[in-house]
Amino acid sequence: MAQLVRVQNFNVSSDGIGAGNDADQSLENPFGLPGPERLFGWAGATASWPMRTDPGGSRGLDDYFTRDYARNIGAEIMGRNKFGPQRGPWLDDEWRGWWGDEPPFHTPVFVMTHHERPSFTLSDTTFHFVDGAPATVLEQALEAAQGKDVRLGGGVNTIRQFLDADLVDTMHVAVSPLKFGSGVRLWESPDELLDRFHMEVVPSPSGVTHHLFWRR
Amino acid sequence: MAQLVRVQNFNVSSDGIGAGNDADQSLENPFGLPGPERLFGWAGATASWPMRTDPGGSRGLDDYFTRDYARNIGAEIMGRNKFGPQRGPWLDDEWRGWWGDEPPFHTPVFVMTHHERPSFTLSDTTFHFVDGAPATVLEQALEAAQGKDVRLGGGVNTIRQFLDADLVDTMHVAVSPLKFGSGVRLWESPDELLDRFHMEVVPSPSGVTHHLFWRR
Repeated sequence: MAQLVRVQNFNVSSDGIGAGNDADQSLENPFGLPGPERLFGWAGATASWPMRTDPGGSRGLDDYFTRDYARNIGAEIMGRNKFGPQRGPWLDDEWRGWWGDEPPFHTPVFVMTHHERPSFTLSDTTFHFVDGAPATVLEQALEAAQGKDVRLGGGVNTIRQFLDADLVDTMHVAVSPLKFGSGVRLWESPDELLDRFHMEVVPSPSGVTHHLFWRR
Repeated sequence: MAQLVRVQNFNVSSDGIGAGNDADQSLENPFGLPGPERLFGWAGATASWPMRTDPGGSRGLDDYFTRDYARNIGAEIMGRNKFGPQRGPWLDDEWRGWWGDEPPFHTPVFVMTHHERPSFTLSDTTFHFVDGAPATVLEQALEAAQGKDVRLGGGVNTIRQFLDADLVDTMHVAVSPLKFGSGVRLWESPDELLDRFHMEVVPSPSGVTHHLFWRR
């Protein structure tokens, strides 16, 4: 079975925005958006949400998407802006991501950055810091995934880079019924992807609309 | 994490029929229904269909249901009528199910029957033949599942027995847009389950309507 590159549970507003403008992202406001939980609240309500610590949660449609998050994933690639709010050279190595001592990845994670930094491990997640074009980074992640798929974790710019390089096999984007007006856009319209991808648009009772893409 | 009892990818017509009347089920027509592939064709079209031998297949909404089929499943319970067309005492032990030398279960399978028969193994699936009330059979399956969930594989009568005994935790039923008129019914209407279950009704672009249930 070929290894796939999968975007999963990525969240944007109905105007296609997945993060605030760069200047608005900070330690206090990682997404740089007003009320970002309006984008990902649907996922937090499900039984299979990876960060869930209590029992309970819904087991309807949305749960199929959160429960698929880790299935057959062997590595993640993320942009530096997903890893942390800093920009430019690392001033120190104290920042170890947003996720505490038990990150929800449980695989090697490749953080794309132009600035070197030693790898480190938290629980069963190891973060590597790699410089290079998407195809080069992907090669490393595919090898680390040992035959399993690679999750492309975002943010927006990272996904766009991989789409531009035609390196994405499947994509699940949850579109929330709100507009931010300004920020970093995944798309002007999902129809932009129809030349290369099949698309299904599935409204959820929770209010988000799941957009599912796979290669033509 | 508690072990769940899950009905998955179970197929019925819009009038709630999942199998023909008993007298209509045979070796040549396992479901005892005219054109039964109209019930499960949606699943066969997906990339993750467990019986798929060629690459390809869709990766949209329907695929989330077929790819969830084996996730965290440690055992299956099925009725004797799913296992084979015979009725009454086993005349011989030659019948080994419909699925050839590589059954798609890959776990222990408990076949509910009043008639004893020795267990046997095909590839990584072992079939056990057990007599007893749903709760008793479930106890055996839960133990065999070693902490994972138990799939309740059908047929209709078996699912109804477990529903009547309140032993089902989650249920996914794909309803196809056709009527059979007569046969074995899972329900007169899915609304019958609303007193005990949350329900979400999700139309798929393929034409089936996924019905998702989880305990209140």
